[in-house]
Amino acid sequence: MQLGMIGLGRMGAGLTRRLLRDGHTVAVHDVDAEAIDALVADGALPVREMRAFAEALEAPRAVWVMVPAGPVTQRVIEALADVLEPGDTIIDGGNSYYRDDLAHAAMLVERGIGLVDVGTSGGVHGLDRGFCLMIGGDEDTVTRLSPLWRSIAPGVEAAERTRGIATDGVPGLLEPGEEGWLRCGPTGAGHFVKMVHNGIEYGLMAAYAEGLNVLRNANIGASEREADAETAPLAQPEHYRYDIDTAAVAEVWRRGSVIGSWLLDLTAEALRADPALDGFSGRVSDSGEGRWTSIAAIDEGVPTPVLTTALYSRFASRDLDDYAQRTLSAMRKGFGGHEEKPTGE
Amino acid sequence: MQLGMIGLGRMGAGLTRRLLRDGHTVAVHDVDAEAIDALVADGALPVREMRAFAEALEAPRAVWVMVPAGPVTQRVIEALADVLEPGDTIIDGGNSYYRDDLAHAAMLVERGIGLVDVGTSGGVHGLDRGFCLMIGGDEDTVTRLSPLWRSIAPGVEAAERTRGIATDGVPGLLEPGEEGWLRCGPTGAGHFVKMVHNGIEYGLMAAYAEGLNVLRNANIGASEREADAETAPLAQPEHYRYDIDTAAVAEVWRRGSVIGSWLLDLTAEALRADPALDGFSGRVSDSGEGRWTSIAAIDEGVPTPVLTTALYSRFASRDLDDYAQRTLSAMRKGFGGHEEKPTGE
Amino acid sequence: MQLGMIGLGRMGAGLTRRLLRDGHTVAVHDVDAEAIDALVADGALPVREMRAFAEALEAPRAVWVMVPAGPVTQRVIEALADVLEPGDTIIDGGNSYYRDDLAHAAMLVERGIGLVDVGTSGGVHGLDRGFCLMIGGDEDTVTRLSPLWRSIAPGVEAAERTRGIATDGVPGLLEPGEEGWLRCGPTGAGHFVKMVHNGIEYGLMAAYAEGLNVLRNANIGASEREADAETAPLAQPEHYRYDIDTAAVAEVWRRGSVIGSWLLDLTAEALRADPALDGFSGRVSDSGEGRWTSIAAIDEGVPTPVLTTALYSRFASRDLDDYAQRTLSAMRKGFGGHEEKPTGE
Amino acid sequence: MQLGMIGLGRMGAGLTRRLLRDGHTVAVHDVDAEAIDALVADGALPVREMRAFAEALEAPRAVWVMVPAGPVTQRVIEALADVLEPGDTIIDGGNSYYRDDLAHAAMLVERGIGLVDVGTSGGVHGLDRGFCLMIGGDEDTVTRLSPLWRSIAPGVEAAERTRGIATDGVPGLLEPGEEGWLRCGPTGAGHFVKMVHNGIEYGLMAAYAEGLNVLRNANIGASEREADAETAPLAQPEHYRYDIDTAAVAEVWRRGSVIGSWLLDLTAEALRADPALDGFSGRVSDSGEGRWTSIAAIDEGVPTPVLTTALYSRFASRDLDDYAQRTLSAMRKGFGGHEEKPTGE
Repeated sequence: MQLGMIGLGRMGAGLTRRLLRDGHTVAVHDVDAEAIDALVADGALPVREMRAFAEALEAPRAVWVMVPAGPVTQRVIEALADVLEPGDTIIDGGNSYYRDDLAHAAMLVERGIGLVDVGTSGGVHGLDRGFCLMIGGDEDTVTRLSPLWRSIAPGVEAAERTRGIATDGVPGLLEPGEEGWLRCGPTGAGHFVKMVHNGIEYGLMAAYAEGLNVLRNANIGASEREADAETAPLAQPEHYRYDIDTAAVAEVWRRGSVIGSWLLDLTAEALRADPALDGFSGRVSDSGEGRWTSIAAIDEGVPTPVLTTALYSRFASRDLDDYAQRTLSAMRKGFGGHEEKPTGE
Repeated sequence: MQLGMIGLGRMGAGLTRRLLRDGHTVAVHDVDAEAIDALVADGALPVREMRAFAEALEAPRAVWVMVPAGPVTQRVIEALADVLEPGDTIIDGGNSYYRDDLAHAAMLVERGIGLVDVGTSGGVHGLDRGFCLMIGGDEDTVTRLSPLWRSIAPGVEAAERTRGIATDGVPGLLEPGEEGWLRCGPTGAGHFVKMVHNGIEYGLMAAYAEGLNVLRNANIGASEREADAETAPLAQPEHYRYDIDTAAVAEVWRRGSVIGSWLLDLTAEALRADPALDGFSGRVSDSGEGRWTSIAAIDEGVPTPVLTTALYSRFASRDLDDYAQRTLSAMRKGFGGHEEKPTGE
Repeated sequence: MQLGMIGLGRMGAGLTRRLLRDGHTVAVHDVDAEAIDALVADGALPVREMRAFAEALEAPRAVWVMVPAGPVTQRVIEALADVLEPGDTIIDGGNSYYRDDLAHAAMLVERGIGLVDVGTSGGVHGLDRGFCLMIGGDEDTVTRLSPLWRSIAPGVEAAERTRGIATDGVPGLLEPGEEGWLRCGPTGAGHFVKMVHNGIEYGLMAAYAEGLNVLRNANIGASEREADAETAPLAQPEHYRYDIDTAAVAEVWRRGSVIGSWLLDLTAEALRADPALDGFSGRVSDSGEGRWTSIAAIDEGVPTPVLTTALYSRFASRDLDDYAQRTLSAMRKGFGGHEEKPTGE
Repeated sequence: MQLGMIGLGRMGAGLTRRLLRDGHTVAVHDVDAEAIDALVADGALPVREMRAFAEALEAPRAVWVMVPAGPVTQRVIEALADVLEPGDTIIDGGNSYYRDDLAHAAMLVERGIGLVDVGTSGGVHGLDRGFCLMIGGDEDTVTRLSPLWRSIAPGVEAAERTRGIATDGVPGLLEPGEEGWLRCGPTGAGHFVKMVHNGIEYGLMAAYAEGLNVLRNANIGASEREADAETAPLAQPEHYRYDIDTAAVAEVWRRGSVIGSWLLDLTAEALRADPALDGFSGRVSDSGEGRWTSIAAIDEGVPTPVLTTALYSRFASRDLDDYAQRTLSAMRKGFGGHEEKPTGE
């Protein structure tokens, strides 16, 4: 098939290369000319100006937008809308808020242009592993574009088939989702599912991180701790005298345990390289989906204490709880005359 | 009545002065001779060496221990046990773990000495307001010592009587607890209730602190925030353009609102003096009870998500989540190639 | 002064009566004619049809809307806008979302009508105690209407003055907020502060509730618990053999303790009447502000783990976590062959 | 090698069969004679009475105890201690509390018997996949028994080798943990690591479950919700009109996404069989390690908000927060006159 691709960063380049490998024609554009050149070297068609997409592709056209979510995505979609024709499709593959999809689709429908929203997971490893695609939009359009999804997604062989799946044993028949792409519903459904995917990701990451921190501090009973009226003494220091090699533990959990996962694989790799993680400061960013997942949970009236706690923990890692903590210290001074301790615990 | 008092810090001195005001005889001891002198000036009897308590007081004696919880309290109780006689009573008024009370009582009962555990709340304001006393121990002993509790506690007039109380309108009759002291049960019950009291205190404090932090940051839409792939843009900055005077808000909440409390009064006082709370760093100590409350909840199988979250937030304020946060950054780099951002959000 | 009042439920009636007591003229309207009659008996002027407000009050008019937040409030404001004239003011005293205030004000400003948003706290006790008023809107208008706020609010004498307040000792001079009402900022600021107030309220309530639950279950070691591979045995049952009278504990905490508050007073009253709380099922509603507070925190990037956890706990009390919990059971069966236990723990 | 095995439930039988497959001699015992017979049919040696282990195995003996943690494990270890001789080793492979290991080892050391504690993960799938073994104990003993660990664990080929591992490319050389078993440290270290493993497991499970619940309720805007003063209206129902097939979503996430894991595989399998999960009630048990992980975190002063929140969510699923929730309802009635709503939200 033919596809336009706008935005040739890590993700956009990876998607393009997977499509080229399968023989698709990909017309690529980026604000950075060198990014275009790099993909032309791999067989892509250069589109130096966005308005050239109309000629570079045959109708009905499909152009994938892979640029930062928010204002940038919006500007590119608006510009593309001026270039494309009725019957064409814009694919938003970035981390857009699904509510923006609804607004974008409403704007595009007036011009006869379709919007397909695609939550794309896979990160820097997607080029090799394939990308997981969570798709929202018109059913016919999504079906028509399925050769693209198939080339980008990992394919059914990337994992053992789920036990009990109805089509198991029926050659050539697959259940929805088994190839690593899924139409989740109408416009916005793809980014909605991707949003929750990332919300879950925050929770999973926090679970591993907190557990490893408990292991890392398992030798707290071996060190001397000053005891004063401000600090709870450790009642049984003999229970905390383990020097645990967190890198080796992450490694052992990778085989046979209940908590094996791809995130654990990555953690083992990072701990192997730097068990103390000295290369990191611990200021953890968040990029939107975790926040939106919690807002969706609140709107739905559905509790997500683990996911939201994981999100808040990231906020706190960036000291955004600073005023709150100082308020606590002020209260403690107020009722107990407690002064803050200058350092550590 | 007669009472011995060991430990003349803020709390011990406050207790002693309330007893002296009501005409009780208080024999006082401290490792700091000046602390003894200060109370002697107010009418207390000096006890320069702990072993002198036996002569300073008439049997059956009661000696109140008001020293740091843990090893110090244990040493004082053991030393006192050598000084006192069968029929005497040791009162542990510090922030001891109720499980230690059980061990101490078992040790003392072999010598015929009783233990009364008293959770004491009131802080630096207790001298004026009276102290709230949560008491555990033998019923007869607690009853016998009630003149002491009455002098220390605030008394029934310190608050309006609870609507619907059975003895309302019956002159001289009070329900348990109405004077600000209560026998909560056998040995350990006083410190158990005080433990939970402090657990609740952590939760209350965090609730105010978090809310004030939301108010403090209500103008985030007025400032420019860089938007990049790592940071979620603020979708509707026009919703966050309030410069809210948190000191004035704390003040207004003190009258008529549902969230009025003594902690709010103290918060208003602190914010009045320093609305930005620049005098504090935000490293918040915890002194044991909050931890023990969460452990009790876990042992009981009873969820206390708010109380434990408040506790953990204090841990995090002291950067004890450091390794966990660095693990998150390492994972983010692993799957997305994300580098940590050098500063702030 | 003169004021119109629309909505004569518990809150609206209480506000009206406080105004009447102070000699203000209050023209009242409600869809329920009997509610009007009841207040007319207390001296209010009846307004049988909303359009009659124009004649019932002298310009510049002020009409207070005290009806359910959301669509009902919006309809009333729109209807009032047709009745009032440029220079008049609509006061929204309900639990409206502050974002709706911004929309309402934008609509009203085109007609020259002002909007003042008032977060009103005090509940069924406000008639006696006075209501705490958190106000947003144009400064001149709020100042002009201050006689109304003064009659409704509790007044400075309702609490001891905050220590260190600048105007202490200056007769007649007060700091903002000291009378129990405060202009918090421009349109929406009143409901923003009220929103956070309720968010805090959820946190405070949960803190007490969780702590009392720990006390209530402090005798778990006294009962026999079956031990099997699915249930963790209680390691030290001797630590949990207290039968604690939660009503008496709530009572004792009311005097002298750090955790005294109005909510505690109410809790003591409820526990006095029904210590087992058998009259309640434990399905806890939430009415919007707690949700909005968490959303504001997320938008601001400010962690409110305690407040949001309290909110989620309410969701879970209504079984809105049902599918999530069944997912856990399904996973446990999947990896461990664990069947759900039919009852209890 | 030779090994004794006591406890032939799902786990013990699986371990035995893996050992038999590799040619080890396994002498098996269980209180259920049929369980013995079943394994004898597969080549195990029957040990009908525990005291027969001394003769059934050659010194130095090793006997694996695989019975329910707590009192049962303790009784079996004590009984075995009477049967074995100095130089022998008892392996506790159950879910014992690591603190019990310390007590057991102290008791056994007096008899010259060693204790090796083994946290065993793998569940009902361990027979096929191999079990992940987290081991604590004397280094020489653990090394001597390594042929056993190798037969039980999945082996290095069960997962791709971690990138950057030092011994990669060196034939026959492996890093600790790569075969799926690891000596984590001295006595107790194995169960300590297994404890944290399960704590993480609770967090991971909750993350998936909460996220799937948000997806399941994504169509809440499509249904009519009554709006009243007690219920927050859904501001933008058009944002929640997705009917999402959670089974298909779990399937698609299995390939290429960041959140792929073995727990997700199991979830996909369960949702495939019963998307509504009607076969489950949602009362989720916990078996000790999650509790102990939180207690360890509290003792260490390390925050684990996600892990503990996941634990508490299980408690709440069993209605152990009942009294707390009723307290909230009582307060709401107290200050606002709110009656509980009879059903649903």
